[in-house]
Amino acid sequence: MPHFNSTQIQLASRPEGWPTHENFQTVQATHGDLLEGQVRVRNEFISVDPYMRGRMDDVRSYVAPYALGETITGGAIGRVIESAAHDVPVGAVVLHQHGWADAVQADAGTFTVVPEVPGLPLSLRLHILGMTGLTAYVGLTTIAGLREGDTVFVSGAAGAVGTAVGQIAKLLGAKRVIGSAGSDEKVALLTQKYGYDAAFNYKDGDIRGQLAQAAPDGIDVYFDNVGGDHLEAALAVFNDGGRAALCGAISSYNATEPSPGPDNMANIITRALTLQGFTLASYLHLAPEFSEKMTAWFAAGRIAYDETIVDGFENTVDAFLDMMRGANTGKMLVRV
Amino acid sequence: MPHFNSTQIQLASRPEGWPTHENFQTVQATHGDLLEGQVRVRNEFISVDPYMRGRMDDVRSYVAPYALGETITGGAIGRVIESAAHDVPVGAVVLHQHGWADAVQADAGTFTVVPEVPGLPLSLRLHILGMTGLTAYVGLTTIAGLREGDTVFVSGAAGAVGTAVGQIAKLLGAKRVIGSAGSDEKVALLTQKYGYDAAFNYKDGDIRGQLAQAAPDGIDVYFDNVGGDHLEAALAVFNDGGRAALCGAISSYNATEPSPGPDNMANIITRALTLQGFTLASYLHLAPEFSEKMTAWFAAGRIAYDETIVDGFENTVDAFLDMMRGANTGKMLVRV
Repeated sequence: MPHFNSTQIQLASRPEGWPTHENFQTVQATHGDLLEGQVRVRNEFISVDPYMRGRMDDVRSYVAPYALGETITGGAIGRVIESAAHDVPVGAVVLHQHGWADAVQADAGTFTVVPEVPGLPLSLRLHILGMTGLTAYVGLTTIAGLREGDTVFVSGAAGAVGTAVGQIAKLLGAKRVIGSAGSDEKVALLTQKYGYDAAFNYKDGDIRGQLAQAAPDGIDVYFDNVGGDHLEAALAVFNDGGRAALCGAISSYNATEPSPGPDNMANIITRALTLQGFTLASYLHLAPEFSEKMTAWFAAGRIAYDETIVDGFENTVDAFLDMMRGANTGKMLVRV
Repeated sequence: MPHFNSTQIQLASRPEGWPTHENFQTVQATHGDLLEGQVRVRNEFISVDPYMRGRMDDVRSYVAPYALGETITGGAIGRVIESAAHDVPVGAVVLHQHGWADAVQADAGTFTVVPEVPGLPLSLRLHILGMTGLTAYVGLTTIAGLREGDTVFVSGAAGAVGTAVGQIAKLLGAKRVIGSAGSDEKVALLTQKYGYDAAFNYKDGDIRGQLAQAAPDGIDVYFDNVGGDHLEAALAVFNDGGRAALCGAISSYNATEPSPGPDNMANIITRALTLQGFTLASYLHLAPEFSEKMTAWFAAGRIAYDETIVDGFENTVDAFLDMMRGANTGKMLVRV
């Protein structure tokens, strides 16, 4: 078989503070002959996610930092165009973690074949039906121990994870779900489309006051995508025995100085709170359980979603930067 | 039966910052006839504890604030001097929560009769064999999920709870136990008497650096009695999956301004940490399990303890204030 070319985006230098285009480089790769067991995949959608910012720093974390001069890895979905693996035929749709590339050549074992369902956009496998949805589900259930009748607060609620959290919380019996978002349009979407009972714009300031007003009876569960002031506000209104699933801290990802933590940490003791950070890698065994529930909810028309799709692989870095600035509603994706 | 007098110490006003003698008042109470089911108890030892400072503020907490003009309640142990309750005879030793008084008259049901064991000082029922020991045990086991081979860090390790935590951790299989204390004498005691593998004086500063040096392989469990800088230092050296039992935050109890939290809260996510605050009231059902283990350890000579005993009921407020300043090693008690 002939050689095969792909275009990839690599980390060229580590960002200090907000990343810029200079931190990335686009390279052409020529792949060798297709070996036994390998496939070639043309990507259709590429995921850009907040956690990727963390991997651009050379700090200890649950996932290793991106190496300089290597392709940015992450979720993507594509279609097999050549195959030397008998169980992954040409035309199959595959999910994978090879990341920011227009095409990939690799062992078939690094791809997961997913069924094509009529009327179901492939892109959903990268969010509400995929890792994003699973993140929301695991955080609410295994980490925060959501119970029927709980009041739930979600920060960054109009993002990919946040829109899933609110809906799943309601479907699992939450009494009241409150969300924060960074624009009035997003706030409106939360209550009109995503079933949030109350929502506020954190850019209006006084997060603590706005949350207290939205949660007159306190909160039992906090799903944190933001950190910083949002966590402090949550600690201020937690009911006794409250539980926080700490999933992300986008407010600090681009900070160049450490920022002080909540000034009311003592509430963790006096209200017997639990704060638990989590990373999806430890909970992938819950994917089948999640998939069964989410597929049923989805089929029943009980799940809404948004995608902010950027066209063109060459716009991947812009898509990532815009997502970090909150330009997306729901999931930010690149259509290759 | 004749009337009966007692002397009690009450909260006269709410402290702002460090309490002073002006915040307390000593009153004489005259009790009425001894009614059926009541006993009169002369206290032998009274407990002064850090958590009491929290109760002097009028803020929401797991225990209600002390009311102004009411006796400060808390642990005490005494002997029955008159009884109108058939199951609590004169001479019985009783534990109770009636607090800062030289004597008490109340329903027998508010007292717990404890056996007198030759060679076992009564005062131990107020600490290593009582609530203090149970606090250490619950925090390590149920809250922090201590596992064999864990490295454990304990802040305020020379206090009543801390001296118990280090020993219990070792007895339950911890590989390495590290403690902080506020004087070189206490630091020496931790390693020489209490089985700590390493200890440092937090008043020397650079808590984060000192802890990192004492824990070259990181920590798995943190038992927090102090909060503030200590929690920040723990977050910096936690291994993945680490667990913190937040028991006290004595560093902030007398603060008049909220103090900023740790500047490395993001580690909770990237290392999948769990921080859990707890209050003993929810775990009293573990007292029999604890008591069985501690009694056996104690009988086997495997438990050391210290008491800092202040003589004279009239010195109770001083004992409390000195304890808040760290003047005690081990348990601070008042001998009535």
